[in-house]
Amino acid sequence: MTIRVGVLGSRGRMGSEVCRVVGEADDLELVATVDEGDDIASLSDADAQVVVDFTHPSSVADNVRFLVEHGIHGVVGTSGMTTEVLDDLRTRLDGAAGLGVMVVPNFGIGAVLMMRFAAQAARFYDSVEIVELHHPNKADAPSGTATRTAQLIGEARSAAGLGPGPDATTHDPDHARGATVDGVHVHAVRMAGLVAHQEVLLGSAGETLTIRHDSFDRASFMPGVLLAVRSVVSRPGLTIGLESVLDLD
Amino acid sequence: MTIRVGVLGSRGRMGSEVCRVVGEADDLELVATVDEGDDIASLSDADAQVVVDFTHPSSVADNVRFLVEHGIHGVVGTSGMTTEVLDDLRTRLDGAAGLGVMVVPNFGIGAVLMMRFAAQAARFYDSVEIVELHHPNKADAPSGTATRTAQLIGEARSAAGLGPGPDATTHDPDHARGATVDGVHVHAVRMAGLVAHQEVLLGSAGETLTIRHDSFDRASFMPGVLLAVRSVVSRPGLTIGLESVLDLD
Amino acid sequence: MTIRVGVLGSRGRMGSEVCRVVGEADDLELVATVDEGDDIASLSDADAQVVVDFTHPSSVADNVRFLVEHGIHGVVGTSGMTTEVLDDLRTRLDGAAGLGVMVVPNFGIGAVLMMRFAAQAARFYDSVEIVELHHPNKADAPSGTATRTAQLIGEARSAAGLGPGPDATTHDPDHARGATVDGVHVHAVRMAGLVAHQEVLLGSAGETLTIRHDSFDRASFMPGVLLAVRSVVSRPGLTIGLESVLDLD
Amino acid sequence: MTIRVGVLGSRGRMGSEVCRVVGEADDLELVATVDEGDDIASLSDADAQVVVDFTHPSSVADNVRFLVEHGIHGVVGTSGMTTEVLDDLRTRLDGAAGLGVMVVPNFGIGAVLMMRFAAQAARFYDSVEIVELHHPNKADAPSGTATRTAQLIGEARSAAGLGPGPDATTHDPDHARGATVDGVHVHAVRMAGLVAHQEVLLGSAGETLTIRHDSFDRASFMPGVLLAVRSVVSRPGLTIGLESVLDLD
Repeated sequence: MTIRVGVLGSRGRMGSEVCRVVGEADDLELVATVDEGDDIASLSDADAQVVVDFTHPSSVADNVRFLVEHGIHGVVGTSGMTTEVLDDLRTRLDGAAGLGVMVVPNFGIGAVLMMRFAAQAARFYDSVEIVELHHPNKADAPSGTATRTAQLIGEARSAAGLGPGPDATTHDPDHARGATVDGVHVHAVRMAGLVAHQEVLLGSAGETLTIRHDSFDRASFMPGVLLAVRSVVSRPGLTIGLESVLDLD
Repeated sequence: MTIRVGVLGSRGRMGSEVCRVVGEADDLELVATVDEGDDIASLSDADAQVVVDFTHPSSVADNVRFLVEHGIHGVVGTSGMTTEVLDDLRTRLDGAAGLGVMVVPNFGIGAVLMMRFAAQAARFYDSVEIVELHHPNKADAPSGTATRTAQLIGEARSAAGLGPGPDATTHDPDHARGATVDGVHVHAVRMAGLVAHQEVLLGSAGETLTIRHDSFDRASFMPGVLLAVRSVVSRPGLTIGLESVLDLD
Repeated sequence: MTIRVGVLGSRGRMGSEVCRVVGEADDLELVATVDEGDDIASLSDADAQVVVDFTHPSSVADNVRFLVEHGIHGVVGTSGMTTEVLDDLRTRLDGAAGLGVMVVPNFGIGAVLMMRFAAQAARFYDSVEIVELHHPNKADAPSGTATRTAQLIGEARSAAGLGPGPDATTHDPDHARGATVDGVHVHAVRMAGLVAHQEVLLGSAGETLTIRHDSFDRASFMPGVLLAVRSVVSRPGLTIGLESVLDLD
Repeated sequence: MTIRVGVLGSRGRMGSEVCRVVGEADDLELVATVDEGDDIASLSDADAQVVVDFTHPSSVADNVRFLVEHGIHGVVGTSGMTTEVLDDLRTRLDGAAGLGVMVVPNFGIGAVLMMRFAAQAARFYDSVEIVELHHPNKADAPSGTATRTAQLIGEARSAAGLGPGPDATTHDPDHARGATVDGVHVHAVRMAGLVAHQEVLLGSAGETLTIRHDSFDRASFMPGVLLAVRSVVSRPGLTIGLESVLDLD
């Protein structure tokens, strides 16, 4: 039996890609697509079981409310779901037996795995550093993913009673050692030819462990979207992030 | 309170390194060292709580029996523990309340982590291949670790219903595609300047995840030995491998 | 003063990209584009000084003859220039004072640099191996670039009196050691998520040198095309390959 | 015919390693070794043709003077050869027909190749950055090799009329972008398990080129020492650095 899927924001860059891969999946059926100017009711008219939302921070809250009211599971990739919206959503889902919504900040399974593996490995190594590498049009350094990874590593090291790694640097006038986030050195490379890449380096006497993720285009988010679509039908209530459905333990 | 540690095979390459790191650890005390020609009774005379064995396949079974009889926990890095020896050991430990023995084929925490992460990530990717790189004096290709990693990946992919990765190769007269172990391509590099290295490459449309382990010398096994020593005192019975004490879930 | 450029095969994948980058370059002017059905005379009518040909093996010889007859420099990226065609072209250029044609099998400057650096470094290292990594739709293994690189390395090692690298492998039933091209081991990875990548690994006691090229799309060939266009106007006669204009010595 | 070699500083870490590899080379003969307390005249008494000096900044000038006076070629790995000493040496060599001295700041052939290749490739890429990785006991960041590499890259880019690479970073409060040396971003990683490593990353639209050098121990300097010993006998006068004898053009 296939899952009947609708897409909100179907003409956007992410939404159109979602339409494509849902259409190609044997166990999914694309039954409705909605974008600006279309009637959202076409989702319920088409009996969609799951709807993926890649719209806009200004409309996502209303969209999700519509889905819950009509007993449609939701997978939300749009940012802008505030704490208030999430709390309200949680309450609504309490009253909607069996209905589930997943809100996913990052659909990249590889990035989620990298962060998890790095955090798990961190307490076994004396040293951990992060090198993130991105295209030169990025305004912020370090990247959000690198910052989040450093925080997870920092937490894991603290929990294991580890302080900062060994570092005898006494002379670094130009900040070659990079940023320090929660005790973890983070280096940001900006280079033509790159898209989005990150390397976590862990070292102890006589060995190193390296976990690297390279992301080239938004196709890399589609497996995460499909996983969420397939998972949400059996996950009542609100789920944040992809990690809980990766079933890694 | 410190743990009183003895070392069997204390003058060997691994044993002497174990003596060194036990001596340096604040929570451990090196109380007895035994090698060929020495009296094994000095371990019990010194009230050792844990004994690490890096001796020889021909003597390890007797050594472990001695330890169990004297109520000393054991950490065994020597190979040659046959199924019969292990079964016998299990029975003896059943009758020795609270006593534990760990038999560890690979003390490299990094190698264990790499294998585990690779197996966990395998089902999320269309393609997985392994490149192992070693010094040129190695007789076998691929390495035991690469073969074991491929088996774990193969199991994970089978369990997830995945077949072999996509591969349109029709012309490969000289076997550039390497070996295939449980459906996973494995490539072996042999090169001066290298010691023991392995890279697991995972790929799906638009992204790759790489997990790499570099091991330069036997110092890299010592954290695993220390972890086993600290863990075995609270793990009654027989434990095989380091993974169960890494506490990764 | 700008160079007046025409493009043959202007609607093809490479040709259209060439039109784009010529149009964007300050020192070049796109004055004529010709594809199937168009009149090739528009190139001479527009007073093109250099014409780039990305057409078809069946038409490239005629195209180049037209260019030489009309005193237009040529940059040829189309394959299928046989030895006979090249010999004939050489003769024609002898009689056309100052006129130049460049025939370029690979416009990737990075690939050319990688091959050159690998060949230069090869004689200083005991061991050299190549790992090439490509998308899974490739039919041949190893890649043409890897084979060419291995040949150049093999030549350099022979010239330096070096034999094959050290290798104690006695047991490799499944060909994990890969292909051997001119004494150099070559490993081919085929993986979803990859495009075209190659790593040359060189090692001697205590050190390794790695040269890696990653190519993600045909944009990476455009700097090589522009370099050829700018170079050909001052290189009379026939030039094969990009290397001679990179001016590396 | 073998070259008769003497070693000054023969009991030091580098000197003893030099004695070992000279002893193993078929075309070299170790005829004299001198360290503190020994008589330097034993070098001339033994008819050494080439002497390698790994002593101390305070004695190297005297040692080299002795060699020139006795018509012995010199290979100097000791630091502390000031401009005055070098000028004096140059004058003395002018009067000693056929005699040569090589002063070599870095005997690592791999490091020299990396710097040269990076400088040659630099002008073909929009972006260049350096990541250097060292053991955590290093006091300075970035490393001298990284600084030197950045300078060579900066010169090559300036000569080619290139400015700094593209970089839209507007927000980098913690210096994640690292140091900037002659317009080139340099990142320094300090990690247990590492020795001395450097990666030069070059990128343009659609491609990257990476040149990486990994050095694990002083064995890696020996091929450079042997090359210098073999070269100096046919290089009259003063030669600075290994590059000129690598014969790369």
